[in-house]
Amino acid sequence: MNTLHVDLGNRSYPIFIGSDLLDNSELSMQTCSSRRRVLITDSNVAQHYLSRVTKSFEVAKLDQLILEPGESNKSIATLELIFDFLLDRQCDRKTIILALGGGVTGDMSGFAAACFQRGIDFIQLPTTILSQVDSSVGGKTGVNHPAGKNMIGAFHQPIAVIIDTKTLLTLPEREITAGIAEIIKYGLIRDLDFLDWLEANLDGLRNLHPAVLTEAIAKSCTSKASVVSADEKEQGMRAILNLGHTFGHAVETIAGYGNWLHGEAVGLGMRMAAALSVLLGTLSPADERRINQLLDRANLPATLPNNATDEQLLRLMHADKKAEAGNLTMITLNGLGNAVVNKTVTDQQIIQVVQQFHSR
Amino acid sequence: MNTLHVDLGNRSYPIFIGSDLLDNSELSMQTCSSRRRVLITDSNVAQHYLSRVTKSFEVAKLDQLILEPGESNKSIATLELIFDFLLDRQCDRKTIILALGGGVTGDMSGFAAACFQRGIDFIQLPTTILSQVDSSVGGKTGVNHPAGKNMIGAFHQPIAVIIDTKTLLTLPEREITAGIAEIIKYGLIRDLDFLDWLEANLDGLRNLHPAVLTEAIAKSCTSKASVVSADEKEQGMRAILNLGHTFGHAVETIAGYGNWLHGEAVGLGMRMAAALSVLLGTLSPADERRINQLLDRANLPATLPNNATDEQLLRLMHADKKAEAGNLTMITLNGLGNAVVNKTVTDQQIIQVVQQFHSR
Repeated sequence: MNTLHVDLGNRSYPIFIGSDLLDNSELSMQTCSSRRRVLITDSNVAQHYLSRVTKSFEVAKLDQLILEPGESNKSIATLELIFDFLLDRQCDRKTIILALGGGVTGDMSGFAAACFQRGIDFIQLPTTILSQVDSSVGGKTGVNHPAGKNMIGAFHQPIAVIIDTKTLLTLPEREITAGIAEIIKYGLIRDLDFLDWLEANLDGLRNLHPAVLTEAIAKSCTSKASVVSADEKEQGMRAILNLGHTFGHAVETIAGYGNWLHGEAVGLGMRMAAALSVLLGTLSPADERRINQLLDRANLPATLPNNATDEQLLRLMHADKKAEAGNLTMITLNGLGNAVVNKTVTDQQIIQVVQQFHSR
Repeated sequence: MNTLHVDLGNRSYPIFIGSDLLDNSELSMQTCSSRRRVLITDSNVAQHYLSRVTKSFEVAKLDQLILEPGESNKSIATLELIFDFLLDRQCDRKTIILALGGGVTGDMSGFAAACFQRGIDFIQLPTTILSQVDSSVGGKTGVNHPAGKNMIGAFHQPIAVIIDTKTLLTLPEREITAGIAEIIKYGLIRDLDFLDWLEANLDGLRNLHPAVLTEAIAKSCTSKASVVSADEKEQGMRAILNLGHTFGHAVETIAGYGNWLHGEAVGLGMRMAAALSVLLGTLSPADERRINQLLDRANLPATLPNNATDEQLLRLMHADKKAEAGNLTMITLNGLGNAVVNKTVTDQQIIQVVQQFHSR
């Protein structure tokens, strides 16, 4: 087992990474002691892991809430179901929420924990690559609004993250691919060595080779933890984690929630961010090709949904929460491994980039 | 103008207290600079103050959202109306919410600010005694759930509180009375001198004598600010501010939201807390009489709603968020001016107290 730490003063917490951690009842005692707990998951994840997690965490009173799966259920309506459940079971401020599943379950359960009685503890038990390397670490929680993703939410750090790498073996290939997009992101934004390593190990990663997987997850979590520690509430550099996301969120909205996976949209968004950086003259065309080749090998999308128009995409990007008072805040690359926050990009430049990504 | 400070590190903020501050456009510039703002209020308050506040705050783009008044609208449904409004108007992370009105508007607008795009700034413009001396200061925000008051919420500090004491002149007498309950609370929990002062000045306060009013509000805010600074997230002594509230919340729920004013329920709750303290032997019967005499003079309720049963009250108190893992957390008095957190009170003792407060 690999143990990392997210350093946030009195909100610091450990990340445990390893095989079969969901069955580890010592870890459940270490993180929850004897406190009452409520396990929140979705019906897909429940099929695979509910009995295992229940067994290892049922050392104290444990209630289970099983939600409908899918991004379309990451809504205020589902949040109300969670509140109703917690209150019906007379949960109190000492109750711990266990969020078992992907980003949807983690974001929504974490936000419920943030708001229930003005904040209770929760633990992330992520079961997808995407949630293991990204959404479970860093305390961003929230739900979607018809006007955009994650519009309603809170910063609320978990008290622990428990990553069982074996859960990835049951994932459909498309989700593996989507998760790899976020792993590649860490190479692009901060860590050229990791990018080299990914180019050498991409096939092993796609085939879920255990050692490669553990290394990629640990490297990604380390990178994320260091960015979050430096800027918990995204007042500055934390925004570099959004490389590809402003494009990507707009793509997800156009495609309709759930039709594109988040990582797929981010994969395309990173290609667009690279193209934008080339247009701005801060990235060489050769480096852009290197990025695109890696994304191609990962089998990530290269073109926009057929129904996407330039104007719609631009409007959605402005509606995205990262847009402030007129200026789009974009993450661009000053060379590989060096992402920066860029508030000088014009709408015209965005349109120029978007036009390169319509399918022929 | 009187200026106080709530000392919370990088979340510190000023409280301005004085006459006609709602018309003070310099104060609006000082607190909001040129940032875009959204004014949230209810239809009752709008009648009196909307045009004035709009005039003084309209130095930058200002949108107005006018909600239905009343505690019954302090709900997730109304919260959704606020989110829809903010997103429809393409508000962003730099937008400031101005909460103009009583505790319902302040709590709900503050919670909307806490959750919108994971947290935006807001300013409290309280127009009731209760909100001026209590709910606008300290960052507790939230909405009600059918299972209990303020069950869903967040700690989110305003960036300023602007208290215009003249707004109290338009309040119905019943609301003045309810607000005075919370003022009396500060005398009981921390400040025997203030209790003496209140006994001497209660008539002036009830008649809204300007100097008495300003003094009472400033004293109350100072007391609240010092408690909040010491324990922002209520992990310990901040709970003394809840004197009378665990009883009071249960009473409000039994009466039905909106039928009793919050302060009225707290007034009765403080009598019950005093009776409990006498039962525990930590308060003398003479001091209890002194408390009841002051509450009588303020015209605050002395008996439970007719439909209240002992069992129902006890159950609601256990469901209240201050109840943790079986033990009721009560605030009791170790003499006048010295409230303490008490986790040793038995259900039987609660019932003994409740039985003294049924109407004959």
